[in-house]
Parts: sequence; structure tokens; C-alpha cells
Amino acid sequence: MAWNAWGDPAQARELDATQRQLLIDTLGVTVPAPPRADRSAAVLPPAALPEKAHTALAGVVGPEHVRTDDATRLLHLGGKSTPDLLRRRAGDAAQAPDAVLTPGGHDEVQAVLEVCAEHRVAVVPFGGGTSVVGGVEPLRAGFPAVVSLDLRRLDALLDLDEESGTATLQAGLRTPEAEELLGAEGWTLGHFPQSYEYATIGGYAATRSAGQSSAGHGRFDAMVTALKAATPRGTLELGRAPASAAGPDLRQLLLGSEGAFGVLTEVTVRIRRAPAEQRDEAWTFPSFTAGTAAVRELAQRGALPTAIRISDETETFVNAVIAGAAAPEGCLSVVSHEGTGAEIARSVEAVHGVLTAHGGTRLGTPSTPSAPSAPPSSGAPSSSATPSGTADAAAAWRRSRFSGPYLRDTLLDTGVLAETLETAASWSALPALRASVTEALTDSLGGDGPAPVILCHLSHAYPTGASLYFTVAADAGEDPLPRWLAAKRAAGDVVAAAGASITHHHAVGTDHRDWMEAEVGPLGVEMLAAVKRTLDPAGIMNPGKLIPAAAQPLA
Amino acid sequence: MAWNAWGDPAQARELDATQRQLLIDTLGVTVPAPPRADRSAAVLPPAALPEKAHTALAGVVGPEHVRTDDATRLLHLGGKSTPDLLRRRAGDAAQAPDAVLTPGGHDEVQAVLEVCAEHRVAVVPFGGGTSVVGGVEPLRAGFPAVVSLDLRRLDALLDLDEESGTATLQAGLRTPEAEELLGAEGWTLGHFPQSYEYATIGGYAATRSAGQSSAGHGRFDAMVTALKAATPRGTLELGRAPASAAGPDLRQLLLGSEGAFGVLTEVTVRIRRAPAEQRDEAWTFPSFTAGTAAVRELAQRGALPTAIRISDETETFVNAVIAGAAAPEGCLSVVSHEGTGAEIARSVEAVHGVLTAHGGTRLGTPSTPSAPSAPPSSGAPSSSATPSGTADAAAAWRRSRFSGPYLRDTLLDTGVLAETLETAASWSALPALRASVTEALTDSLGGDGPAPVILCHLSHAYPTGASLYFTVAADAGEDPLPRWLAAKRAAGDVVAAAGASITHHHAVGTDHRDWMEAEVGPLGVEMLAAVKRTLDPAGIMNPGKLIPAAAQPLA
Repeated sequence: MAWNAWGDPAQARELDATQRQLLIDTLGVTVPAPPRADRSAAVLPPAALPEKAHTALAGVVGPEHVRTDDATRLLHLGGKSTPDLLRRRAGDAAQAPDAVLTPGGHDEVQAVLEVCAEHRVAVVPFGGGTSVVGGVEPLRAGFPAVVSLDLRRLDALLDLDEESGTATLQAGLRTPEAEELLGAEGWTLGHFPQSYEYATIGGYAATRSAGQSSAGHGRFDAMVTALKAATPRGTLELGRAPASAAGPDLRQLLLGSEGAFGVLTEVTVRIRRAPAEQRDEAWTFPSFTAGTAAVRELAQRGALPTAIRISDETETFVNAVIAGAAAPEGCLSVVSHEGTGAEIARSVEAVHGVLTAHGGTRLGTPSTPSAPSAPPSSGAPSSSATPSGTADAAAAWRRSRFSGPYLRDTLLDTGVLAETLETAASWSALPALRASVTEALTDSLGGDGPAPVILCHLSHAYPTGASLYFTVAADAGEDPLPRWLAAKRAAGDVVAAAGASITHHHAVGTDHRDWMEAEVGPLGVEMLAAVKRTLDPAGIMNPGKLIPAAAQPLA
Repeated sequence: MAWNAWGDPAQARELDATQRQLLIDTLGVTVPAPPRADRSAAVLPPAALPEKAHTALAGVVGPEHVRTDDATRLLHLGGKSTPDLLRRRAGDAAQAPDAVLTPGGHDEVQAVLEVCAEHRVAVVPFGGGTSVVGGVEPLRAGFPAVVSLDLRRLDALLDLDEESGTATLQAGLRTPEAEELLGAEGWTLGHFPQSYEYATIGGYAATRSAGQSSAGHGRFDAMVTALKAATPRGTLELGRAPASAAGPDLRQLLLGSEGAFGVLTEVTVRIRRAPAEQRDEAWTFPSFTAGTAAVRELAQRGALPTAIRISDETETFVNAVIAGAAAPEGCLSVVSHEGTGAEIARSVEAVHGVLTAHGGTRLGTPSTPSAPSAPPSSGAPSSSATPSGTADAAAAWRRSRFSGPYLRDTLLDTGVLAETLETAASWSALPALRASVTEALTDSLGGDGPAPVILCHLSHAYPTGASLYFTVAADAGEDPLPRWLAAKRAAGDVVAAAGASITHHHAVGTDHRDWMEAEVGPLGVEMLAAVKRTLDPAGIMNPGKLIPAAAQPLA
């Protein structure tokens, strides 16, 4: 990935002049964004890894796997939130780690943590670097040095248990490579988050990722049957059965632990037979409320298709404009069924009845089920491949489903501040939650000027509730970073006040940790701190993340 | 419940003379069991609750809710494992609690815990008293006194959110009463463990219960969306969304916590619309292996019916004998579908194809779907209602599905030692696991004498694995308690060595805690101990349970 933008710069997603002008006019953009700082403009602090620690670490992983050059450090500055990108556009590289380690397997990771604990070096586990919540920012937190622990060499499929339908994967494996290894044997993970091309197996587990096919395949945390983790106190291996009554489920403490307790090195996950066929459909609903009710009924009947998402009116319109297509009336829903022909037919029968009963209308002619399209090796669609009409809305979604983050960089170049945030709550709480988040963002970013554009969709549904995903675009103004931070604060506060979760799949990192006390209560925070003290007594593991500052052990 | 047997003595499940003689001959029973001790024979230690603690507790819950009479104490001696029953048959009441408290709601529970922490009184939360692993045994653990905290007055339906499909129930509510409250509004929990008539909502959550319809409704832990717990350090409220990435899932630390961290007082669970119809079927398979493969395929296709169980050849034979029916060839499987007529038809279509493909044969004439039979208010079927043939095997299962524990008392009266144990593992591990457990039990209980009869069934299936449930019957001999404890030890050791879970739904209590280090590793045990220290610094909460003795805080 580029150090200061999403992904591969060659795949950047452009807007045409009409689209660009529409945005500028709608959002009242007056100030052009500052150009992106060149790599040479980034000033890194000197690498401060103490000699003794360096020698000891080189002894564990080999000297060639302790990198202190600026180019490597620059690629481990942190994640890819809009605040991250804004700081890098300004050439800010003050957070560069002192070294980047690339251990070769679990035992080396375990030994690295013991060396770092001894030498008081903070450790930031690094997978794909796709965090949008500050989860991989190398904070020193009072320690003499901080290293980024890049897991890219842990990239093996360790075990495939075809009878049990599970695979044991090393944590640093990226999804396309995991799909290739599994696909060769006829299996799939079925996990397709927007960060698909870069994010890693360990990162998914450590952050409780949700993919676009969560309706059919489940969240990543629900796919995990067993895991292995290195901690400063030793190795943990958890998960002996698909279900157990042997006390609290300690796997659930490592899932979502974001590197603050240790490093997930191996994850055993449920896998599926690669589907024979796939059928995408586009539907419209007269309102977001009607579409939401349809998704709710499917979830509560246990009849969800492999993927389903419903966009609100604004997102429906904006996505059509971006795709160069005419916007359908109402709210667009994209539905995908996967399986054998017979399974798809059963799913179609169950789903169509419910969607129609809630006022849904199918767009275009029915597509013939086809062999599943392989996820693109890069997420960027050709901008010339705009769909010709609304019937192609589903195809446009599939084609561009990993490319949203590229568009954010293009928008920032245009002087448009763009970012996303997400939450989840019970079905009955969703309407008020959506209204209050929209109001908070509008008030904070709009002020006396033009209102921001706020898109919302529902793409992860459960029997008892769902997530809401907001995309915000606003005039970046003179100083976009504090503008966004204030809006994010306002939105987070109303999410917490509504009794909803501060994050459905983006995780906590630095950006959400101030809401963790609202999320789990002060005693819940103490439980997290107690577990951290047990596994990481020196506090070297990803300091400053997950646990609110007041409960963090200090160096 | 009777103090020294399961349930209501009037519902005792008898065997006829032929059945009894068959058992005696098969198992080589030579010694008649000692008669059950009369209540008057039970000698209780003096109630030792210190005066100051008594006064303070009476101030919280009212004097009438601090009971120290022997009759009440006797009903809180512990749970209903075979070792429990054997000790009580001998008149052993040494473990009686010093008092039984019946608080009236969450706030009173919270205040009770604070008083007990101050006065160093151990607290054993008590729901239905159905534990078969020593989970509610009032261990003093060095404290001056121990109280049983009976939650029977926490019996309200606090909230019904019909849009989200959730209900908030107080912890002391028993299932029949919960079903009555929910059924009045057209809803059901769908949770039907063998302990259905007595067990409570809080107990299900605290022990990760699994019901007989787990295939359709999920385990109890999977139904819980939120919970409220009182701990000596204060109240915890966890669960703000159906799914969240806000760090580790702390609900999963309270689920399965067995009262060792605090007392679950309120649980919000997913509920279902009461099914319109229900259809039970009986199938046979040529072997347990074939039946297991069929259940596996259903689980991995996401096509499990509401309930499915497959008995091995021995269980198939023995159950038929008990029911007074002819045993079918091979292995019996009972299958139940619930829902609307259309849903049942879809389930039947999907399930029958898979069962048939694995060599399954449907028994008898297809039953017409019928209105669901209400669970019996008592679990004991009339012994005259024996089915007339194998086609009635499904009906026999439904009729007697809560009455197994009654039979155990009858067997003990006959000089037959009977007990159950269960485990879970991945599909690929199940055959070796079943063989090794069977061998361990046979070696331990058989010795040079007649072999024990060991029944096995698979009744909880997941995409990646399943549980195995063993029922053991053997000559009780002169001293059945050490005989069973040795067999249980041998079985537990092979379960642990096989990498399986020491318990799928019976929980840990006292009886499984020695295997917890095998289950989660020494560092996992430290994590549990750290959480306990955080929530219960004085160690008063259900001491001696869940956490291995070496990691338990001492009074």
C-alpha cells in the first residue's frame, strides 16, 4: 500500500469533471486540498531501538528481519483512517516505529515478545495496515522504543480438515492468498470486507471483522473455532470444540483484543465449499424503513441470502451518480445468493416473497446464475465500465465493492472530507439511532455552511438487530482534521447515549477507546485491564489501544 | 424437588419386573442398593451464620428471606449428580448451607453480595438446583459461613421487545413459567434441556446450557444478547448490540461463569414466534457412523431441522426395552421439524434427501404435522403408555424426554449405578473420542466382572463438530461412589488427551475443574483467576467451582 493513501496508487479511482463539479457545488467546497506530501517530505525521527534490544531481536528473527530503514518504517506509520491520511498528506511521520520486525512463525513471535518485555520495547502487531481506528499506530507510551511486528511471513495454510470443514491459517495471510490456497482444494473463507485485498487473517480475528457476505457466512469472530496466540507471558491455545460449557469462552477475550494482550499467530476457522453458482439481484424499496423491515423479517425467519444490503435514499442517489447511472426511485438493495442451483432456487423463493411483501421491486431482468466471479486481484474497477442502467446496480456493487477507499483519496484531492463510521443496535433502536447520528454529524460539520452529505446503509443483519454504516462527505475547509475529529466525537457520543455499540466491525484502536467505558461499564474496563496485566504485565503490547487511557498500565 | 432424588417423587419412573431382571442379569448386579435415607436420618451441622451477618442480611432482604431451618437447608445441599444422590442416600448432609437467602430483585442481590463480602460469607447462587457437576454445592472454602442464594423470587418477564425478537427475563424464572409468560404473547424460548422443569434462566446462562432443540434454536449462550450481573465489586451490564467489534466480548466471560464471578440477575435472550406446527419423525441408520455423517452433512449445509439426535446401537436397543417396544435394526434417529406448514415442508424436503443419501430409512407412516404438544408439567410419562411399535419411537422420545433423571433413581434403587457424561469435538475427532471414552469407562467399571452398558448419542451438531453424550449403567457394587469417581476420572482424562472439551453442556462445577488446565492451559486458568480477583476480591463467590483449586483465592 502507498504510505499516504489507500492501496496501489495505480488503481486510484477517479471522478469525471461533471461528478467533481457536482460535489464541489453540493458541499460548498471553496478551498482546494493541499497537495499530498511527497515521500521525501516526510521527516522521520531517528530510529531509537536500543542496541541491546536490536541485537537480541536480530538473534531471534535474523538480522535481515529487523529493518530500521526509513522506507520500511514509513510503510508502518499506522492505518488508513481519514485522520491518518490527512496527517500523512501534511508529511507527518513522527509516529514512525523504531524498527519493523518480520518474524517467521509462532515461536519467533513468542520469543520476540519475551525479548521486548525484557528490554521494555513496545510492540505493535501489524497485518495489512488497514485499520481505520488507529489500531496499528506505533505509540511509544513512555517506552524507550516501539517496534512494528509485521506478520507477513506467517502466511501458510497449516491444516485443512475437510471432514470438520475447518482450516488453520497463519495470521499474516492476506485474504486473496488465503482464498487461493483454499480454493485449490475447493473451499472458501467467504470473508469479503472492503479491506479484502490487504487485510489479514489475524487482523480479522483481532478486530472482529465483518465481511460483505456476513449474512451467509457470518462475522469472522463467529467463524473462529480455535486460535493460538503469543503473549509476553507465554503461548495460549484456545478452542477444543465447536461449543463448550467449560466455563467462560476465553477465545472471546482474544477475538477483538487488537494486539493489546498478545499476537494471534494461528487461527482455525470454519470454511465452506466454494459455491457452484452465484446470483446477484438489485431491488428497490419505497423507503429505508420498508427495506429495513424486509431485511429484519429475513433475519428473524433464518432466511437471509448470502449477502443483502439496503442503502438509504441519499446513498442510492450518490452511488448511482458515482457509477454514472440513473438513480432508481427509493432505496436500492443489492441481494446475492450463492450455492448449488437448487440451493439458490430455494433461497430465491424464500427471499423474494419477503422482499415483495415489504414493497420491494426487482430491478431489470433476472440475471442467470453464473459461476462466481473471482474477487479482483486489485479492487479498482475501470472507470469506463459504468453500468448503463439501474438493472446493473448489482453488477456495479460487485465490481466496486473493494474500491470505496480509493475514492476517498480522490475526494480528499478535491477538497472533500470523506470518512465512514458504523454502529449496531437492536432492531427497535435503529430508527432513533440513525436519526441522532445523522443530526450530530450534520450539526457538527454543517454549522452555518452547506450541510454535509450523509449516506447510510444496512449491510449486516442478525435476528435481533443490525449495523448501520454511515459515509460522510463534507467540505474539507481550511483545517479538515479537527473538523472531522469534532464530528466523530459528536457522533460517538450519541451512539453511546443511544445504548448502541460504538463499533460493529471497525474495532476500537485509539479512536474509540474513550467510549469503552460507556460500552462495557467501568467494571468491564477493569476486567479488560486485569486480563491485560495477566498476559502483558509490562504493558508493552500495542499500548494506547482498546483500553481507555486511565486504565492503561504506564511504562 | 426431593432432597435425595430427582424431581417430584410422585412422578418416579418405574421399571417392570422383566426390565428389572434383564438389567440385573446383564450387569451382574449382586448387591441390593442400600435404601434411601429418610429425611429424619440426615444430620445437618448447626447453622453457623454469624449473628452480625444474619442481621445485616435480614436488613437487606427482610428477616423472612433469611432461612436457617433444617428443611430449607436440606433442599439446598447441592445438585443432582449421581455422586450427590449417593451421598444423600447415605444421609450425608454435612454440606448444608448455613442459611438460604431469597432476595427479591437485582438490587437486593447486589446488596447481599456486598454484605457477604464484608462479613466473609461464601455465597452459592442457586437456581433450580439441577447441576450434575457439583455446581451448587455449598462449599465453605475456609470462610466462617456459606449461604445458598436462591433466586426463585427473581421470576419476572421484565421486557418483551417484539420488533427485535428479544425478552429480558429475571434469572430465577423456571422454564415452564418463562414459556407461559412468553407463550401468552405468542413467543417461545425454544430451550428444552432434560432439566427443563426445574432449571432457571440464570442457570442456563451461567452454565452454557444446550437444549434438545439446539439445532433449531441454538445453545442458550448463543441466544443471550445482553445480561446484568451483580458482583461483589458492583453491577455489570453487558451487551449493546447483536454483534460488536468493541473489543473482547465480555458477555462471554459471564456466560459460563457458574456464579464464581457474581450472580446473573437478568438475561436478555433471543426469542422465537411459537411454531404453528410440529412434526416428529423416527429414522434408522445402518450404523452410528452413517447417522453421524448424515447429521454432519445437514449441519454443514445449514439444513438442520429443529431437533435431531442419533443413538448408537446400544442406546437404540436399551431405549426400546425401556419403552417396552421392539428395537429397530441399527441406530435410531429422532427428527423434529417446527414452523409454519410451508417451513416444515421445506425442512422436510431438505432433510429427507440427506438422510436417505446416507442410508437412512424412515420408520412407520408419516405423521401428520400437528399443533405442538405443550411440554408436560411433569416429566414422567405414564409407564403404561408404552408405544406399540418402532413407528412410535419419536413419540416415545417426546413423551419421555425430561424423565431420564427419574429413571436414574429407580436404577439406583435396583442396585444399578447410572450416570451420564458428555463432551464435544470436531467431526474428524469424534470416532476416536467415542472409542476411547467407551474403553476407559469399560475398563474402569468392568474390570474382571461384567462389562458396564454404555449408551451414546449425538444430539447437538454444529458445522464443525458435535457433542457426544454417554449414559453408563453398571453394577453399583458395595461402594458405588468411588467406583463412579474412578470411572469419571478415567473418562475425563481420555477426553482431555483427545483434545476434546471436558463438557459440552453440563458445565464445570467441582467435578470438572481439575481438567480446566487441560481445557484452557495454565495461562487460561490465570486469566480466569484474574477476572475473579477483579470482580470478587474476597473470593466469596461460589468458591471451589470452575477454577482449579491451585488458582482459587483462599479465604
